[in-house]
Amino acid sequence: MDNFQLFGNKVKSQEFIESIKSSKFLFSFVISYTETCEIPGITFAGADKESVKYTPPADAEYLYYGFCKTIDKIPMTPDGKPTPALLTKTALESSSIPHVVVNAGSKISPQLPFIQTGLSYGLDISSNPAMTESQVIRAVDFGRIVGRTLATMTDCLVIGESIPGGTTTALATLRGLGFKCKVSSSIPNNPVELKNKIVDDALARLDTENPYKIVAELGDPMIPFVSGMLSSASQISKVMLAGGTQMSAVLAFSSKIGFDEKNTAIGTTSYIVNDSSANFLEQINQIADIGGIAVNPYLDQSKFSGLKAFSEGFAKEGVGAGGTIIASMIKSGFNSQRFLELAETEYQRLFTSQ
Amino acid sequence: MDNFQLFGNKVKSQEFIESIKSSKFLFSFVISYTETCEIPGITFAGADKESVKYTPPADAEYLYYGFCKTIDKIPMTPDGKPTPALLTKTALESSSIPHVVVNAGSKISPQLPFIQTGLSYGLDISSNPAMTESQVIRAVDFGRIVGRTLATMTDCLVIGESIPGGTTTALATLRGLGFKCKVSSSIPNNPVELKNKIVDDALARLDTENPYKIVAELGDPMIPFVSGMLSSASQISKVMLAGGTQMSAVLAFSSKIGFDEKNTAIGTTSYIVNDSSANFLEQINQIADIGGIAVNPYLDQSKFSGLKAFSEGFAKEGVGAGGTIIASMIKSGFNSQRFLELAETEYQRLFTSQ
Repeated sequence: MDNFQLFGNKVKSQEFIESIKSSKFLFSFVISYTETCEIPGITFAGADKESVKYTPPADAEYLYYGFCKTIDKIPMTPDGKPTPALLTKTALESSSIPHVVVNAGSKISPQLPFIQTGLSYGLDISSNPAMTESQVIRAVDFGRIVGRTLATMTDCLVIGESIPGGTTTALATLRGLGFKCKVSSSIPNNPVELKNKIVDDALARLDTENPYKIVAELGDPMIPFVSGMLSSASQISKVMLAGGTQMSAVLAFSSKIGFDEKNTAIGTTSYIVNDSSANFLEQINQIADIGGIAVNPYLDQSKFSGLKAFSEGFAKEGVGAGGTIIASMIKSGFNSQRFLELAETEYQRLFTSQ
Repeated sequence: MDNFQLFGNKVKSQEFIESIKSSKFLFSFVISYTETCEIPGITFAGADKESVKYTPPADAEYLYYGFCKTIDKIPMTPDGKPTPALLTKTALESSSIPHVVVNAGSKISPQLPFIQTGLSYGLDISSNPAMTESQVIRAVDFGRIVGRTLATMTDCLVIGESIPGGTTTALATLRGLGFKCKVSSSIPNNPVELKNKIVDDALARLDTENPYKIVAELGDPMIPFVSGMLSSASQISKVMLAGGTQMSAVLAFSSKIGFDEKNTAIGTTSYIVNDSSANFLEQINQIADIGGIAVNPYLDQSKFSGLKAFSEGFAKEGVGAGGTIIASMIKSGFNSQRFLELAETEYQRLFTSQ
């Protein structure tokens, strides 16, 4: 598995990979929303400001149908770079990994069957608490139910997310919980100053050490929900948190409410691990003694600029892309070159059929 | 397995039982609604007319939590006989069978995570078409997606339902599709005349042989949705339709749109099979060449009148009770006497804690 770069506790990374070599995988795609993404300049996860709220359900629809129902085209950046769901779909289909969509606070419901939680979206943390404490408790409880149910049906539960603006709430949550962090984003010129200002303003309101209250003030619904999933699922099956900084925030909150470290790993792309504007590896080492796995999908070698863009810092991760690529390679035994060919085929299908 | 009574194609019943002896099971509980249940005297699935719409979500909540959130107590008949979900819960818990709730047209959403489809409830067939044809097509399509997803996660998918008034729409659908049928109900003095009048009135409107149009006119959302589930799931895993006449109607529509007979069986209670006001065995034989399994849970021997009532014709089936009891006995190897003890323990917990 030369395509993998290990991090965190590397012995545990290796053990985790060995333990899932002949596993059944299930990918759960958690969609959510924070109004923090409506602050101008904070996210490019959508063609324009109005369309950002459609990105999570549209990603979900694209994974199922190969096209979207809520919007006309697949989610893109303003200059036409495609959603990382393209990588996720390629990974899942090439290795026949089933998936379910979970709505944990998306403003818009996807037009397909999905697991409904009834959780509300999060408010803009620059001016308001994200949620009430009871909403956080409910999110954790419902996450536990969903995690338990899904983990009983598989050997390895891979959890990914789509929450525009989620790196900012992740940064705030990580800092609020006492971890030193810089945060990655879907934009190459990461608007670090803007994010830090939002986070500093939000942190200034904080007057508690209770982790539930910290997440209520600074987080988003995805964080407590996925932490709930992890806490119950990791007692039953292997769990791979698939994502970058958002999953660090999940791990940070999970380290307060409890989960089984020996069954847990984090999986992401090499673009996250090698992002010098963030300190992803340090984050993970601070938070938990778990294994980490990063995959380099060789997108820099693509003949398509839209795929190359991922390697240049656009949407470096998201929709569980890194984790699902890792799962698909472990399950099907193919390498990064083969993955790139498959992703290019899907890219071509999308941009010639539309 | 002396506790089982085989019917349908009995060789196939036996083969089906053999094939699932060391299987993983998953129970999917499909909740729905037809306004037909609001016709006075048609159902006792609820303490009074106003509460009937809460019965499906309340059954779902009780399965998860052991108590309900939408209403104060578990669903009961007007004179206090409990929901068959009591039997289902006993079966699932005693043998650690996971389950998921699917909302396919329930008027009220349960307060727990569930698979959302966005399907509307059905209209009262005595005066209106139940649905539009495009709603039927959408229900089948969404059922196919859910069935495919769930079947990839298990060896044997057990499908149960809760739709008050559903025996009447089932009767209408069966007759509309050309099968000769009488229909069971949750009331010992089955209001046969009332049901037949409703069905005759609805059938009089029918001017098509297209099965989609027939279900749109006479059915309910559960029927096309579960048929969609069966059509995709039976290509991947074993499927047990858990229920009485409602599942005959599913099977009848499925026989028109296609499913894999060799992977399909129907499982129910002996109270349905031995109900002289219905002709369940004949129905199944007319419709499909599949195996049938009925279980006698010995509730007539219970010391509690509330459990005895099931054997006396109240709520003879529902919430997939028969099928889940069969699955639990096959998985855990216990017999009807042991099941009765477990059901009595649950009955006692419920009626001393409330």
